[in-house]
Amino acid sequence: MDYEAFFTGALDELKGEGRYRIFAELERRAGAYPRARRHGGTGPDEVTVWCSNDYLGMGQHPKVLGAIHDTLDRCGAGAGGTRNIAGTTHQHVCLERELADLHGKESALLFTSGYVSNWAALGTLGARIPNLVILSDAGNHASMIEGIRHSRAERQVFAHNDWRDLDRRLAALPKDQPKLVAFESVYSMDGDIAPIAEILDVCEAHGAMSYIDEVHAVGLYGPRGGGIAEREGLMDRITVIEGTLGKAFGVLGGYIAASSALCDFVRSFSSGFIFTTALPPALAAGAAASIRHLKDSSEERQGQQDRVATVRARLKAVGIPVMDNDSHIIPVMVGNPVHCKQISDWLLEEYGIYVQPINYPTVPRGTERLRITPSPVHTAEDVDKLVDALSEIWSRCALSRVAVAA
Amino acid sequence: MDYEAFFTGALDELKGEGRYRIFAELERRAGAYPRARRHGGTGPDEVTVWCSNDYLGMGQHPKVLGAIHDTLDRCGAGAGGTRNIAGTTHQHVCLERELADLHGKESALLFTSGYVSNWAALGTLGARIPNLVILSDAGNHASMIEGIRHSRAERQVFAHNDWRDLDRRLAALPKDQPKLVAFESVYSMDGDIAPIAEILDVCEAHGAMSYIDEVHAVGLYGPRGGGIAEREGLMDRITVIEGTLGKAFGVLGGYIAASSALCDFVRSFSSGFIFTTALPPALAAGAAASIRHLKDSSEERQGQQDRVATVRARLKAVGIPVMDNDSHIIPVMVGNPVHCKQISDWLLEEYGIYVQPINYPTVPRGTERLRITPSPVHTAEDVDKLVDALSEIWSRCALSRVAVAA
Repeated sequence: MDYEAFFTGALDELKGEGRYRIFAELERRAGAYPRARRHGGTGPDEVTVWCSNDYLGMGQHPKVLGAIHDTLDRCGAGAGGTRNIAGTTHQHVCLERELADLHGKESALLFTSGYVSNWAALGTLGARIPNLVILSDAGNHASMIEGIRHSRAERQVFAHNDWRDLDRRLAALPKDQPKLVAFESVYSMDGDIAPIAEILDVCEAHGAMSYIDEVHAVGLYGPRGGGIAEREGLMDRITVIEGTLGKAFGVLGGYIAASSALCDFVRSFSSGFIFTTALPPALAAGAAASIRHLKDSSEERQGQQDRVATVRARLKAVGIPVMDNDSHIIPVMVGNPVHCKQISDWLLEEYGIYVQPINYPTVPRGTERLRITPSPVHTAEDVDKLVDALSEIWSRCALSRVAVAA
Repeated sequence: MDYEAFFTGALDELKGEGRYRIFAELERRAGAYPRARRHGGTGPDEVTVWCSNDYLGMGQHPKVLGAIHDTLDRCGAGAGGTRNIAGTTHQHVCLERELADLHGKESALLFTSGYVSNWAALGTLGARIPNLVILSDAGNHASMIEGIRHSRAERQVFAHNDWRDLDRRLAALPKDQPKLVAFESVYSMDGDIAPIAEILDVCEAHGAMSYIDEVHAVGLYGPRGGGIAEREGLMDRITVIEGTLGKAFGVLGGYIAASSALCDFVRSFSSGFIFTTALPPALAAGAAASIRHLKDSSEERQGQQDRVATVRARLKAVGIPVMDNDSHIIPVMVGNPVHCKQISDWLLEEYGIYVQPINYPTVPRGTERLRITPSPVHTAEDVDKLVDALSEIWSRCALSRVAVAA
């Protein structure tokens, strides 16, 4: 077989469909975010980033950078080993305590990324609990789907956010069969929020464990940044809360928070936890500093919510088709991969505005979009420029607008 | 089902078998490695680490720390997104170029860890190349096994390092079936080295792609630290070279180096690459500084090899049962999980020497061991103390010694 020809052919197909990904090469600028320098391509060197998951700008917060600098000086760069073999440092232990406290759980367990935390935790629970059936929301993230698939546990997909469908499916299962319900709080691409209380009612009625992915919510919601479940006073009813340190907390890594026995079980049996080098202690210290800051300060959360409300209202006022939701994620619907890429290119090259096009398979075909994530560090002038640019482009292409309420 | 009771029961079983893992909590000390502060437990606060994979002490190298500090100041902490959505920074692009150059390949692709690079690359190739059969060495690491398993491709396991068995298996397959042979250069627990040239001869004879895991070799072997394949002049004959930035390079992350088309194929189709937050740019800069340094400097490699030869000879001279191999890994065989843990505890508590016990499933039952990894920063006095401590413990327990050649 001509392997090179096969790879090239598969890539040509992607290009033909308009969904070949070209990465924008940025140089982030601490203290200047959302401004970044762009390398390569045509158009302005300096761009304003409108699609980052550094939702609160914590990636440039002095406390976070200070903790990383300090720990680098004291402890060096890498962890030097897996958690079991020389890689558990004081900083990992402190961060796990911080996370357990954030979610009001007995324990927490760190992973090298949010992807790995979902994949490894669901993979281990699914593979190791005899006869477990996992009920998975139809909108779940790739990392959850892959973890469940990897576990080879029995799986049912329930209709997105539909706790009635979930209830029917659980009721139809044998009463003594172990069950786990896996879902997210904020879905990253539509920005919609799960009916957590109703889902938990159903879980409890049928003796199912609950597993919630709060990666797009931790740091952003709840009085201490514990996520949507904290905001709604539901954390103690959830079996496993999964989160990330790489989005609102501004660093890198993922985790689960749960009972001591469950965390210890995953710690002891998960290949993806056991056989991988631990996070650098300096990153663990930086993440802990970020969490501690956001436990005490609501200023960043409030600033983000204000900015989101403004951008949403302003886009709607000029008829840009924004998908409605109750979160901080603003999807601007385009519905065609080639148009989506073209609009993104114009924004970047003509206006210095960076919003990556989101195409299949990240979203379903026909729902291609720009995903805008306002942060407290975007200024009023940034908002003006964004709204004007999108409005001009919509006119240029005679793209359909939404009727604006008088 | 009583889930908590199930978890506790499974953990009790591990404890009963003597293979429940207790993590030593360390505080690494930049500039003082292999010294570290130990938190908790009894025994000395200051310990000497003899089991780290920071093989050359690059985790405390001034160039590495300087690059991380500098990039933190300029670019902040996290990448802020996936590689596709706002997370590709100039530092990632430069590091990928550095890695491609290290291995003489057209291209390289970064992952968040070595585990993920194996899992994602093998998982994607196995799932996406129609009818691919993967031939996997019996000694392969968990990350490779899980990636192959996840791909659901046809799989055959060939006898460890046995290119004749591989040859027979390849010859029995249909000529036009696509084939991939996955193996390691240095096996981490036995420290033995693959017959790479013979394996490549067999791959080429049967039109198979070759995939080599060099995580325990990059930085350590070859004139520029390209690994065993570089040392043996074989890099250009290998389809995919996989490596890590978290061991000899002292930071975090994993990668593959291969043709542009293959890297672009994995980049475009791998869930574990696409849907995960990118490494922090500061870590990418630190890793690039480490690689650049080790391309030019052989001092660390030579220092490590000298230290390894000394430790091995000294342990043999007092009859400690060391497994022979041609690498930098010194397995001291114990053969019982409870004894292994006991010896490790005594070393730590009485001598301030940290060598983690290695038990099943990391190694087969009955081959439990201490895995010693000398580095250029271990002093002659450190070596004396290690040899004396092991010798005293061997006498105390009347553990069998190996006959010492006169």
